[in-house]
Amino acid sequence: MKVVSEVRSHGGRQLVLTHDSAATATGMTFSLFLPPQAEQGRVPLVTYLSGLTCTHANVTAKGEYRAACAAHGLAFLAPDTSPRGEGVADEEGWDIGLGAGFYVDATEAPWSSHYRMWSYVTEELPALVATEFAELDMDRQAITGHSMGGHGALTVALRHPGRFRSCSAFAPIVAPTRVPWGQKAFDRYFGGDPDLSRRHDAVALIGDGARVDHLLVDVGGSDPFLDKELRPELLVEACEQSGIPATVRVQKGYDHSYFFVSSFLGEHLAWHAAHLG
Amino acid sequence: MKVVSEVRSHGGRQLVLTHDSAATATGMTFSLFLPPQAEQGRVPLVTYLSGLTCTHANVTAKGEYRAACAAHGLAFLAPDTSPRGEGVADEEGWDIGLGAGFYVDATEAPWSSHYRMWSYVTEELPALVATEFAELDMDRQAITGHSMGGHGALTVALRHPGRFRSCSAFAPIVAPTRVPWGQKAFDRYFGGDPDLSRRHDAVALIGDGARVDHLLVDVGGSDPFLDKELRPELLVEACEQSGIPATVRVQKGYDHSYFFVSSFLGEHLAWHAAHLG
Repeated sequence: MKVVSEVRSHGGRQLVLTHDSAATATGMTFSLFLPPQAEQGRVPLVTYLSGLTCTHANVTAKGEYRAACAAHGLAFLAPDTSPRGEGVADEEGWDIGLGAGFYVDATEAPWSSHYRMWSYVTEELPALVATEFAELDMDRQAITGHSMGGHGALTVALRHPGRFRSCSAFAPIVAPTRVPWGQKAFDRYFGGDPDLSRRHDAVALIGDGARVDHLLVDVGGSDPFLDKELRPELLVEACEQSGIPATVRVQKGYDHSYFFVSSFLGEHLAWHAAHLG
Repeated sequence: MKVVSEVRSHGGRQLVLTHDSAATATGMTFSLFLPPQAEQGRVPLVTYLSGLTCTHANVTAKGEYRAACAAHGLAFLAPDTSPRGEGVADEEGWDIGLGAGFYVDATEAPWSSHYRMWSYVTEELPALVATEFAELDMDRQAITGHSMGGHGALTVALRHPGRFRSCSAFAPIVAPTRVPWGQKAFDRYFGGDPDLSRRHDAVALIGDGARVDHLLVDVGGSDPFLDKELRPELLVEACEQSGIPATVRVQKGYDHSYFFVSSFLGEHLAWHAAHLG
């Protein structure tokens, strides 16, 4: 692992790091914020999964999370959204391939050689940061994400019961098997395999019995993707039927951008902090 | 004036606007944040002047000012740093020409035809926003800025007694006539004219009797430009000799970037709000 950059911010350390990933068989870059409290003892970790077209850099520059992380003593981990580099498959368009890994392990060629973001974010990256940063208390974790990363946060939390004390999301894709972005991605990455697809669909997972302990979701009321791609009403229905204690809010006037995410990320982090103790 | 974009953020409206400037004889773009309180009545205005290489967009994306503006009911105005467009003079290097207007009215060719940022930020832009946005209480103004924009904030406040209730700056160039960035700029824009140069040098202006009511300055202790370009000790000395109530802090470990600015901009805005009433 190499340090690409380290700067002081909000009393803590904002790092950007790179390493050779076994999961993706590429180099991978991520950012990690260590709050001032990490100099005194171990701190909980919030993982943030980013959306389509993003890298670690978008939320790191525009997410406005450091003030809340410093106030509540939270570390903040932001991985990339896909493998990148020579030999990594891509396809025209911004909703598939580079920047659009959908947090799955692809089974179909040409994607299967590198697009293994599920293994990367659920296994390799947590193990790496746990080893490299003794400041992190891996027994106190939370997860959140935006759009495609909200899908990632939900599915990762649902399939790892007990690992995350709380899960939140911004404008998540809650039912990828039923919307164009997800159908296209799962067609490419799984050849549309229905069983694999179902295991990466939050609403389907809840229907199949998966649970999270605490769930908070914000969606912008003026998000142009609301009705066609996000469909938060399907998540509300699934949580009601399954008894998952969920707060799903439609924030009037907000769009899909980081102007929306940054407006509520501080509040999400305070909510995670309350659950992380 | 045309609206380039408007998004909801932190309960308010983040606007980007463009207009034809008489001062610069070019189009000019700026951003304006109106906090939620502007829907109920008039709000004070904080003007933020950006540094070398920046446009309005840097602080708008990375400044993390909206949470504090919404908390304290402050509007936040961020102009560009130079004229831009066809026919606007430029020169190789990032510290002169485009993105480097230094908030002066140039007198030397080829700069004098468009580089009139002093007139733009002190006269034309305030008059424009006062006319277009009845929500702004122009009797309650504060000013701040970063690096070259810290120089701008200081000189604009010093030469407009009574207009700004408070002035702050991040890593400002406090004595441009004595440092390479300022000497190069004033050589190009004024042909080095000593009288004009002196009227755009904060430390010299204070020596000549100019005053501000309240001054807060933060500088990063690991800022690579600290000793050669910023020289905060000259401002401290000038304030001590002149009786200006100034707080000048060197923030240990911080650099010159927006990771530094965003760490303290919220605190500056709370301080401005206290003076703005």
